Amino acid sequence: MNFASDNTSGVHPAVMAALAAANEGHVASYGSDALTRAAEDMVRKVLDAPDAAVMFTATGTAANALSLAGMADPWQRIFCHNEAHVEMSECGAPEMFTGGAKLTLIAADGGVLDADALDHAASYWAGEGLGGGKPGAISISNTTEAGRVWSPDQVAEIGAVARQHGLSLHMDGARFANAVAASGASPAELTHLAGVDLLSFGGTKNGAMGVEAVVAFDSALAERLAYMRKRSGHLLSKHRFLSAQFYALLDGGLWLQLGAHANRMAARLAEGLAGVEGASLVRPAESNQLFVRLSPDAHDRARGAGAVYRGWPSLSDDDADAEGFVVRLVCSWNTTETEVQELIAALKG
Amino acid sequence: MNFASDNTSGVHPAVMAALAAANEGHVASYGSDALTRAAEDMVRKVLDAPDAAVMFTATGTAANALSLAGMADPWQRIFCHNEAHVEMSECGAPEMFTGGAKLTLIAADGGVLDADALDHAASYWAGEGLGGGKPGAISISNTTEAGRVWSPDQVAEIGAVARQHGLSLHMDGARFANAVAASGASPAELTHLAGVDLLSFGGTKNGAMGVEAVVAFDSALAERLAYMRKRSGHLLSKHRFLSAQFYALLDGGLWLQLGAHANRMAARLAEGLAGVEGASLVRPAESNQLFVRLSPDAHDRARGAGAVYRGWPSLSDDDADAEGFVVRLVCSWNTTETEVQELIAALKG
Amino acid sequence: MNFASDNTSGVHPAVMAALAAANEGHVASYGSDALTRAAEDMVRKVLDAPDAAVMFTATGTAANALSLAGMADPWQRIFCHNEAHVEMSECGAPEMFTGGAKLTLIAADGGVLDADALDHAASYWAGEGLGGGKPGAISISNTTEAGRVWSPDQVAEIGAVARQHGLSLHMDGARFANAVAASGASPAELTHLAGVDLLSFGGTKNGAMGVEAVVAFDSALAERLAYMRKRSGHLLSKHRFLSAQFYALLDGGLWLQLGAHANRMAARLAEGLAGVEGASLVRPAESNQLFVRLSPDAHDRARGAGAVYRGWPSLSDDDADAEGFVVRLVCSWNTTETEVQELIAALKG
Amino acid sequence: MNFASDNTSGVHPAVMAALAAANEGHVASYGSDALTRAAEDMVRKVLDAPDAAVMFTATGTAANALSLAGMADPWQRIFCHNEAHVEMSECGAPEMFTGGAKLTLIAADGGVLDADALDHAASYWAGEGLGGGKPGAISISNTTEAGRVWSPDQVAEIGAVARQHGLSLHMDGARFANAVAASGASPAELTHLAGVDLLSFGGTKNGAMGVEAVVAFDSALAERLAYMRKRSGHLLSKHRFLSAQFYALLDGGLWLQLGAHANRMAARLAEGLAGVEGASLVRPAESNQLFVRLSPDAHDRARGAGAVYRGWPSLSDDDADAEGFVVRLVCSWNTTETEVQELIAALKG
Repeated sequence: MNFASDNTSGVHPAVMAALAAANEGHVASYGSDALTRAAEDMVRKVLDAPDAAVMFTATGTAANALSLAGMADPWQRIFCHNEAHVEMSECGAPEMFTGGAKLTLIAADGGVLDADALDHAASYWAGEGLGGGKPGAISISNTTEAGRVWSPDQVAEIGAVARQHGLSLHMDGARFANAVAASGASPAELTHLAGVDLLSFGGTKNGAMGVEAVVAFDSALAERLAYMRKRSGHLLSKHRFLSAQFYALLDGGLWLQLGAHANRMAARLAEGLAGVEGASLVRPAESNQLFVRLSPDAHDRARGAGAVYRGWPSLSDDDADAEGFVVRLVCSWNTTETEVQELIAALKG
Repeated sequence: MNFASDNTSGVHPAVMAALAAANEGHVASYGSDALTRAAEDMVRKVLDAPDAAVMFTATGTAANALSLAGMADPWQRIFCHNEAHVEMSECGAPEMFTGGAKLTLIAADGGVLDADALDHAASYWAGEGLGGGKPGAISISNTTEAGRVWSPDQVAEIGAVARQHGLSLHMDGARFANAVAASGASPAELTHLAGVDLLSFGGTKNGAMGVEAVVAFDSALAERLAYMRKRSGHLLSKHRFLSAQFYALLDGGLWLQLGAHANRMAARLAEGLAGVEGASLVRPAESNQLFVRLSPDAHDRARGAGAVYRGWPSLSDDDADAEGFVVRLVCSWNTTETEVQELIAALKG
Repeated sequence: MNFASDNTSGVHPAVMAALAAANEGHVASYGSDALTRAAEDMVRKVLDAPDAAVMFTATGTAANALSLAGMADPWQRIFCHNEAHVEMSECGAPEMFTGGAKLTLIAADGGVLDADALDHAASYWAGEGLGGGKPGAISISNTTEAGRVWSPDQVAEIGAVARQHGLSLHMDGARFANAVAASGASPAELTHLAGVDLLSFGGTKNGAMGVEAVVAFDSALAERLAYMRKRSGHLLSKHRFLSAQFYALLDGGLWLQLGAHANRMAARLAEGLAGVEGASLVRPAESNQLFVRLSPDAHDRARGAGAVYRGWPSLSDDDADAEGFVVRLVCSWNTTETEVQELIAALKG
Repeated sequence: MNFASDNTSGVHPAVMAALAAANEGHVASYGSDALTRAAEDMVRKVLDAPDAAVMFTATGTAANALSLAGMADPWQRIFCHNEAHVEMSECGAPEMFTGGAKLTLIAADGGVLDADALDHAASYWAGEGLGGGKPGAISISNTTEAGRVWSPDQVAEIGAVARQHGLSLHMDGARFANAVAASGASPAELTHLAGVDLLSFGGTKNGAMGVEAVVAFDSALAERLAYMRKRSGHLLSKHRFLSAQFYALLDGGLWLQLGAHANRMAARLAEGLAGVEGASLVRPAESNQLFVRLSPDAHDRARGAGAVYRGWPSLSDDDADAEGFVVRLVCSWNTTETEVQELIAALKG
């Protein structure tokens, strides 16, 4: 019963099979191979973006930092949520890759930014002149770090603010499959049709071994991104093995099936938690991550039964009077119905 | 017949098997897993360096850039050969990771630096004061980009210069297996016993899918390196799949068998070339890379027969009067005797 | 009647005289001159810090950014007030000089940080592990950007938190003269005796043409700072002209007389504003900066009479229901009693 | 008798007078003042470049680093002479400001680069692909660090290579006054008419206290440069005192008179040296810097008489068989005929 993160899961069999299949003969290195071309084309097709530039990397932090560096100059401000992965969990990668751009944090419950708040922030900093730094970009996460899912309209509102202020818009899609599956919208509707300029399209949490795609809907960014990937050490020499993973995920819609499965397991878990004394959702169950307040007793029972998950101190702090503390429960592409029922049973004791 | 590079080869079956074996169950992410501990221990054992800090990355450029950033401040100079990979082939990764340290190029035939030349350069720049930047580190490659192999004594001479001037010493071991196999020396003799402070220990060209180890013989660098790996996006979430590769290579000495095999194939090829009209080695055959001047006729015959290899313009320029041009022929862990004979036959026509 | 900023004032006659006096003969460049030694010694004497390293620059942004880069690694977090000059007004200089360290903003009325809030933030980020970045430093401003003045005890509380968490402590003293004069404490009590590690000691706003001192109470930072100043272009070749300014300010205690004068003028202005309809202080008058809510009528009268000052939109927003808007009124070393009375008269109409 | 550098000289009386005159009343800070507008206009007029963007800084290292950062992306190569100030004497400022661009060194006697050599280098690195970094810019110095002077035709040859390869062209004019005076060409002919995109127009060595102008002939660079100057701490708050200096130098052609004077003094010195046993020019006397091989006896005599100058070890090394060593003798705007004669007399003994 491991609900710690979707990156504690292994690799989907189809991806493993694709890696084995790619291991044939001598193939040109550094991405100059036919499989890489095919995987890039597949990404463009899935996103209905025939002119997009596509570039694979092995980590989500690299994909995000390269995306932001593709958009923002060192003297610019990038607006993002105060719990955004780029702020909280990447050890300053955006600052390193952009050459020192500043992340300016915007509060928002659950990470779905408010267009008016962004509009206000962009206006405010534009008014501060040289010293304030120039408003340059917005980064949003879909699904958010809180497990929330954006609708195309919500994204489009942010896209409109971006256009109005001359900002670029990035979407951190480390869990893009979960977002698309949960929203019912198309990948295009959630991205370029809503004003997104650059997408970090996640594969790793979706069942890959380690691959993410940087997608620039304006292909003029392709050269800049290519040099930046190279000099940041993120151009793999045996690149076919990145491409094989992404191709396998997208082929036949596997990525969406896996994303939907993880969401479904989380929904089942949420249903079950409703019947557990000492467990209550603190955020709505919209995708594959649940945030749950547990009583000490419930926690002890679950741990005793071998359940693995992480505490979420920032949320625990939010309500100092409540009993217990908040934990995050993540369902993955390979979470089983059985595991979900076992966890519910363990919490009940 | 592909002699373009050792990274056009695929992955050794034992590594593929290790990846499959590692794909079991939920495992802690970001390197907090037992297999990563075991692989790190194995590296320490192979290098006879029980206190070394070991850190895996997916690319050689990352390993080199992190190593140099672990050693050098932004205002320092790093001395290296003018054909060093860190200068020629990494698009400024050392500059990006160090925050702008300067590579100062030292000429040397075949990339084996001369201790006196280094001593002179370090003294000269120390004498230039603040404006010149502070001499900070030396980076050498073993095997060199020219296929040369360092003896432990040669490394130790550089190590002595480093100590004398207070410089750190880095070894780019992208082809460390070939170097160890060719030298007959132990990994320890070629590194920390000779004064090397940081080693980029290559796995990818040696039969892995994509893994290199940064080895800091002074474990005090461990924290600094860990933060730098994270913020450069080089800490893989499903890290067990990096560790599995390196473990499989080192286990039972596979890495050295593969390195020795590649060297042996290159030696066979060199022998065969001696009998080819219109082909002559321009550098001694010491490891798995050969640099060969081909007549246009020989080249046409080889290409016609389907041989793949790369031209090496910088060497062609060296002797403008000579006929033909220089190419690089690289043997890999999976180069076969048959391929070698086919290439020789093709060149002969 | 110019109350826009203390940097719209010119240069004190004693400083001009010192520049003229320094313009004699050939003098060693880049700070290797006797006057520079004397000015550095004077700084050490004033701060009662005989071992401190002292380094002059031409701008406060440079002094702050060099100080922070002397303390913080690229992967660290620097805690500061959300209205700190380093965050609001330096266009990312701290990020540029540190190589991408993150400023983490702490709210506090008037910019005097609360020790408990800092303690909580440092603990929180330490708990976030690699991804969160490592807590590295604290930066406070004295006087604050809101014109508040720290007591030695208040600084010492922050110093204690810094020590407890292994953080360095920087004080942005762009208006250090005003702070010392207002607090009644000694320069030493407000800095190294209270745990400050690095001080930006301002001269420009205090009557100089353009000079600030970086003071590192731990002289081990001297070499690092010297290289960083050089590579950031902040080592002036005709350096004697920086040193002459600082010497002139400190000589005979002129700096404190000027700081006290500016504070006194602001106090007079505050007294006078008490009798002005349509003008009210929104922050206490502690040093040389006043923040005043003006009615539209009062504003029109003052502007009509030729008064120059700046609006302060962030404070205006704080109380959307209040009439009028907030402006900042700054008194300088050369603000006269007459100007103060003229402004009061103009506001009254 | 100080021939150490033109920055050991003080400030011209006209510049001092201009500083005193500028010290009147309250003036808008950060360059938003009328004197700054006038000084910028004067620069444009002198260069016959009505659309150029002009920006003042206090140091030549800042002017160079900002210029290069205005032209080059972090992943680019900047070609320059191997004795260029940007390589030898700025402690990595170009790397810091550009975010890690690489300086690629081109040998050339006396620093006047050969167009064919540049063409070859640009072609070579363009051929190296991503790994090699992208050729981005060329930086030349006029006068060169060896005291050589470029003709407009020579600059135009480099400009043509730049255009052909899509590179930007920077001129480090720390001694631009000496260059213009010596060449007899107009400022425009030596810069934008010959293909120069960015000029570091030096004032400090020409008689100022500390001011240089960054001139971008393509004014589209203005915004980028403005943000970079701010975040590098090089926007002075009491900016009028920078502007006053440059205005005073350009006003009435003072800058060219001073440059011509320094050149003339060097010519006199060169004439006199012809009659000195144990002194011989190792480079032609073209501007205000002479490089002279001195016998130990001549050196002892000069030092004994109080002459101050610097040894030039790199040139001494060039001819290990020659007696003595090479020194640099720099004449300045305030070097007198008497000092020149005294030095000659001292060397003769």
